[in-house]
Formats: sequence, C-alpha cells, structure tokens
Amino acid sequence: MKVTVCRKEHFNAAHRLYNPAWSQSKNREYFGKCSNNNYHGHNYEIIVKLTGNIDPETGYVYDMKALSTLIKKQVLDKFDHRNLNLDTEEFKDLNPTAENLAIVIWNQLRPHLSLNLTLSVTVFETERNFVEYNG
Amino acid sequence: MKVTVCRKEHFNAAHRLYNPAWSQSKNREYFGKCSNNNYHGHNYEIIVKLTGNIDPETGYVYDMKALSTLIKKQVLDKFDHRNLNLDTEEFKDLNPTAENLAIVIWNQLRPHLSLNLTLSVTVFETERNFVEYNG
Amino acid sequence: MKVTVCRKEHFNAAHRLYNPAWSQSKNREYFGKCSNNNYHGHNYEIIVKLTGNIDPETGYVYDMKALSTLIKKQVLDKFDHRNLNLDTEEFKDLNPTAENLAIVIWNQLRPHLSLNLTLSVTVFETERNFVEYNG
Amino acid sequence: MKVTVCRKEHFNAAHRLYNPAWSQSKNREYFGKCSNNNYHGHNYEIIVKLTGNIDPETGYVYDMKALSTLIKKQVLDKFDHRNLNLDTEEFKDLNPTAENLAIVIWNQLRPHLSLNLTLSVTVFETERNFVEYNG
Amino acid sequence: MKVTVCRKEHFNAAHRLYNPAWSQSKNREYFGKCSNNNYHGHNYEIIVKLTGNIDPETGYVYDMKALSTLIKKQVLDKFDHRNLNLDTEEFKDLNPTAENLAIVIWNQLRPHLSLNLTLSVTVFETERNFVEYNG
Amino acid sequence: MKVTVCRKEHFNAAHRLYNPAWSQSKNREYFGKCSNNNYHGHNYEIIVKLTGNIDPETGYVYDMKALSTLIKKQVLDKFDHRNLNLDTEEFKDLNPTAENLAIVIWNQLRPHLSLNLTLSVTVFETERNFVEYNG
Repeated sequence: MKVTVCRKEHFNAAHRLYNPAWSQSKNREYFGKCSNNNYHGHNYEIIVKLTGNIDPETGYVYDMKALSTLIKKQVLDKFDHRNLNLDTEEFKDLNPTAENLAIVIWNQLRPHLSLNLTLSVTVFETERNFVEYNG
Repeated sequence: MKVTVCRKEHFNAAHRLYNPAWSQSKNREYFGKCSNNNYHGHNYEIIVKLTGNIDPETGYVYDMKALSTLIKKQVLDKFDHRNLNLDTEEFKDLNPTAENLAIVIWNQLRPHLSLNLTLSVTVFETERNFVEYNG
Repeated sequence: MKVTVCRKEHFNAAHRLYNPAWSQSKNREYFGKCSNNNYHGHNYEIIVKLTGNIDPETGYVYDMKALSTLIKKQVLDKFDHRNLNLDTEEFKDLNPTAENLAIVIWNQLRPHLSLNLTLSVTVFETERNFVEYNG
Repeated sequence: MKVTVCRKEHFNAAHRLYNPAWSQSKNREYFGKCSNNNYHGHNYEIIVKLTGNIDPETGYVYDMKALSTLIKKQVLDKFDHRNLNLDTEEFKDLNPTAENLAIVIWNQLRPHLSLNLTLSVTVFETERNFVEYNG
Repeated sequence: MKVTVCRKEHFNAAHRLYNPAWSQSKNREYFGKCSNNNYHGHNYEIIVKLTGNIDPETGYVYDMKALSTLIKKQVLDKFDHRNLNLDTEEFKDLNPTAENLAIVIWNQLRPHLSLNLTLSVTVFETERNFVEYNG
Repeated sequence: MKVTVCRKEHFNAAHRLYNPAWSQSKNREYFGKCSNNNYHGHNYEIIVKLTGNIDPETGYVYDMKALSTLIKKQVLDKFDHRNLNLDTEEFKDLNPTAENLAIVIWNQLRPHLSLNLTLSVTVFETERNFVEYNG
C-alpha cells in the first residue's frame, strides 16, 4: 500500500542565468533579463515527495517533522538567503536554472533516504514557472 | 482518450496522533505536540481525481456536481466538524495520520465508482503537509 | 535525465454547456445552470507541462519565455476574452467542458513541440474543478 | 469593542463592458477586448465585511452561516452562472464593471443588515484586479 | 511617514463553540455542528499588523524576525496544537469564536509593543471566514 | 460614491539589507542573513490601490489596463530582474527594506495620478511578510 507524503518548504535566493562558455552578449541575448550582471532573485518554493509503504505502528510513510528537518539541513541551510552563483559549491560551474536546481536538490536528499522510498522534487521559481524531477 | 477530472473539497476536524499499544510518554516522544491529549485540528482540503474516458454525448468523464455530491455524502458527512478519533468508526482503531486518512477516503469512494475509472485521493493536512494515495 | 518544466497561464472566457442533439429541457436537466442560455464564464488557469532532457548548454528543457509565447499564440490569442461557443472554431460543434478544453489545448500545442517532449495540459475551470490531459 | 467579520463567496458569470451611448467602435477602442460582442466571463470572488459589536452571549458579531445564507440569497442566486448584461435587472442599464458590481452588491445587502453594522464589499474580477466599496 | 508592517503566522487547534449558560440543545441549535461535543479544529492563519514610523537607521518600522518571535512566544506557544476550550486559560470562560480569538490575541500582544505602534490582528478560521480587530 | 480599485503586479529582484554607516559585523548582527554580502532575492508582489469617484460614462474609477501600464512603466521597468542595491538610483543610498520599497513605489506613482485619487501601495516581500503605505 504505497502512499506519497509531500512537504513544502521555501527559501529566498539571488541568482543569474549564465553560461561562462558564451560571450556576454550571447548570454544576454539568450537568457534576457534573467542574465542581469548584478543578479535578481526569487522566493523559491520546493515540494519534496516520498513514496513508500506505511509503517503500521506509526501510520507514517515518513515523519513530516523529520522530513522538514532533513530539507532544512540539506537544502535550506545551503541556499536560503544566498546567491546561488556566488555562495554555493553546487552552482560554481552549473547554470542555476530551475531544472538544475531541482536536480541538485534531489541529489542532496537522495543519499539520506531509504532506497525503499521514491523521491520527487518540485521547484517553484515563481507561481507560474516550476519544474519537477523524479531522478 | 483518457482524461483526469479533479474535484477539491474541504472539511474541518479535530484529531490526535496516538498508538494505543504505546505508553503515553512514547506517544508524546514520537508524535510530539500532534499527540496532545485534548486534540488539535485542521482545515483538511481533499482532491479527488478520476481518470477515464470522455463520454462523447456529454463531454464529461464524470459530472463534477455528482462528484461533489458523492464526496459530500461519503466523506464530508462523516468527518466534517467531527473528532476523527472519537466520532468516527474508521479511526476507532486506526491512527488518523494524513496517510491513513487518504486511504480511508479512497476506500469510502472506490465502491461507488465504476471500475473504468482510476481513483486518486490527495489530503492536505496543512498547506505544507499533504499526501497522495492511488490505491 | 528527464525533467518536467511547467508554465501557468490564464484567460477569461464565456461558455455554456450544451449538446445540440438534446432538447433544451434535457440540456437544462443534465447540465443545470452550466447550460444557461446566455452563457456564464470563468477565469481559466492552464498549466502546460513539458517533459524532456536538459540541454547541457543552457540548463533548460524548454525556455519558459518561449513556452509562454507559444501558449499565448496558440491558446490565449484564440480564447482570451471570447465566448468559447460562439467565437471559436474549435467549439462550434464540441461541448466546451473542461475535459474537451484540455484536449483542444493539447492538440493546439502538440504540433509546435519536438517529439522528444512529452506534453501534459491541466485546465482549472475554478479553483475546485480542474482536469488533466496527457495525450 | 468593534470587530470586523468577513465572509468570502464566489460566483461565475459572463459579462461585457459596454456604454450604449457610445458607438460600437468607441466601445471597442475604450474597453478593448473586455467589450467583446459575445461576452467573456469571470470567477468572481466577493468578500463581505461587517463591523460591529460582539454579542457577549454568542461571541459573534454576526453568524457566519447566516451571512453566507444572506449573500447566497441576495447575490449568488441572482448572479451565479448568469450573463450580467442580459440576465439581471441590475445591469440592464448599468455597465457591469467591477466598480459597479461592488456598489450593486453593497446595495443588495445593506437593507438586510442592522444599521449598527458597517458594511464593506470587495469584488475580485481576477486575482490581480479587484475593487472595494464601503458605501 | 507611517508605514504598516504585517506578519502572517499560523497554528493548528481544536475548539468547539459553546455557551455554558445555555442548554446542550440550545447550543446545538444555535452553533450547529460548530458545537460538536468532541470538538473539531482549524488551521488558523493570523496576520499581525503594526503601524508606525520608519526608523531611519534601519529602514524598519519593526524587525519582522522580532515580530515573528513575539507572536511565537505570546500566541503560538499557547495555542498551537492545543484544544482552545480545554488547554488554555484564555478560553476557560470565553467562547472561542474567531471574534474572541482575535481580541485575545490582540490583548496578548499589546503590552509587548510600544505605544507608538498601532496594532491590528486578523484571524482566518478558514479561507472563507475571517475577522479583524483593531483594539 | 468613492470606490477603491486595486491592481496586483509582481517583479523579481535581488537585494541585501545594509546600513553603510554601520560596520560589517553590526550589519550582520542586526540584519542577519538578510545582509548576506552577495545578496539574496524575492518574488515581490505589489498591490496598488486608487480610491476615487466612478466616472459615470465608463463605470471606471481608473482603467485597470492603464493602471497596469503605469505600474509597468514606473515600477517594473526599473526593478524587475534587477539588483535593488546596485542597479537602481532609488536605493543607492537607501536601505531596500520592504518599508522603504513601498515608499519609493508610492513616490514613483503619485506624480502620475490625479490629486482626486487617493493612493495606497502594498508590497509583499514574501507571502508572510508585507507592508502597506498610504502616503
């Protein structure tokens, strides 16, 4: 009896979209204002979904408080109130698009979760732009 | 041509998380404030999703008004403005976690729906904690 | 490494539910107030989801600005501030239920997208009634 | 000890903006696509606010269930799933802008409320366009 | 130059509406299902608004982190995951309507704020029922 | 017959809170992570409210499309996808708190509006932190 439990968290960060192999003008042309030299930022909302069996003793697939704590430690403590391009190891050489952010977050969480659990990560860059990654 | 139709409904209920096989202190330790003796409560939002073929005569997979009526009769009339632990048969011996609530709601709806329809139930305990069950 | 990118857009339209093969009274009986002769209307929200591989050069599955432009051209320019029954070719002979609307939108977008991309369309008629179509 | 109690309700309606004293082209020029001949529509959300003293016996300024019933009878039964221009007396000779809609709703509710209560009406035409009227 | 700063917080609690001076049947008749003997519950959202002058040195009317901490200490620590009727001093002899809850929260915060600040408290019992109190 | 019309817009920007008259450590101590050297960012939502008389010919207090265009020109074109501290004249010597942002936006809009209209500006830094300024 598989159930999916979902936890929503948020963080605020600055970023810019930028490919260092491209010229400044090509970056500006392709990424538009998202490539602004001095960065812009977002209120990122993330939803972490775990699918697995219910523990009959607790009625939980995964303790939501523990999931919140895990997300805080592995994701928020790294990214919240930071500049993704300048302040994080993960995006030193990786363009911080929503797509790449979802993959990075998934990779940060996966090693800390039992292999009996399926993991999905959704990242909302804005209310109207969001991405999903299932590994 | 399969389409999924989704109806969102809500109800307000009290509950506490509690395993009667455990001591009071173990319940308190594991479930924390969710195990408060005198209960707490939630505005539960539920989303019921039915996947099936469109009836070419009506353009419907399932009449949303009929789906709303079904949810009201099978779910809301039992749970709305109730104490899940004390006032319902379903949780007399079952811990009313969001996981178990999703399964119970799924089981209450399934017998009333054609087998040509796939059923999924999502339960939001809060805006940040929710679960999905697909049978 | 498949990622799903999602873009939410909206439009406002009038419609009525109506099967021309039925009598006026049967339409009224089955579709209720949704069949009102002089139409009613909705703020439709749509979510378009594309699943595909990330382009390593851009970090994008699909440029969200380009996706927004595509939806604007193929969907909003046809439906926004229109009467779905009277002002559109698509619903001249098709009942504008949310189900049919999702399929029509999917069909309008599919030819303009690479076959490497999976397409899903969600249509919210109201916050509580919505449908999903994946082709 | 004045407290304000607020109740949110919604209805779906078709309308067009139109001044019959103007030419068709002037209407089109001024109101743009909002003047579409065959109407468009909205999910209207309304918030009714009553300010008054708390009844010490009940702890209520006004029973929310009774307020919901009053709004249903005086507003929703007239406007829900209707064409504001064609199906209502109130907008036979009045342009159904959000501003005028707020005033009409206020006038429909005011006679049914004690003069000890202050009345405010907010109308959301979309999530991004809304108006407030306090009499 | 007066500015209003607003902080939204939430808590989950059980309650029932009940006037001990009334008979059980009168309570049931007047408060309906909100008077259920075994309680029901809500996800309460509260908005605390402070109006005052901006400190030119900090650019703040009031530090939002400090406001969040104050609300946590004075309000959430008392009410979160509690039964308002049974677990709190404030509602031992006071009906826990949204109106009374707004006044109680206002009174809990007022002594901890400078008299140069105007205080307003909004309590959302559900998304559709909420109250405002300004002292 | 005064009515208030409200228009919601949004922009994404980077910023940091910082008082140049203070030491780095005092900035860090007072503003915490909001003072991060390399900036962070937000999805800012703003609500602009205009109160005035309804024009009997149009039924408008102010044309919402014109209001949206005005906000775009005076506010979004300056701030969207920018770094408030580095890319704007307004915050060269002013700490970009939500309070100061509301005042700056109010001042940018006021000269472009008739004196018959009252102006109010609300700025949401996050869903839980927002400020209001009425001049």
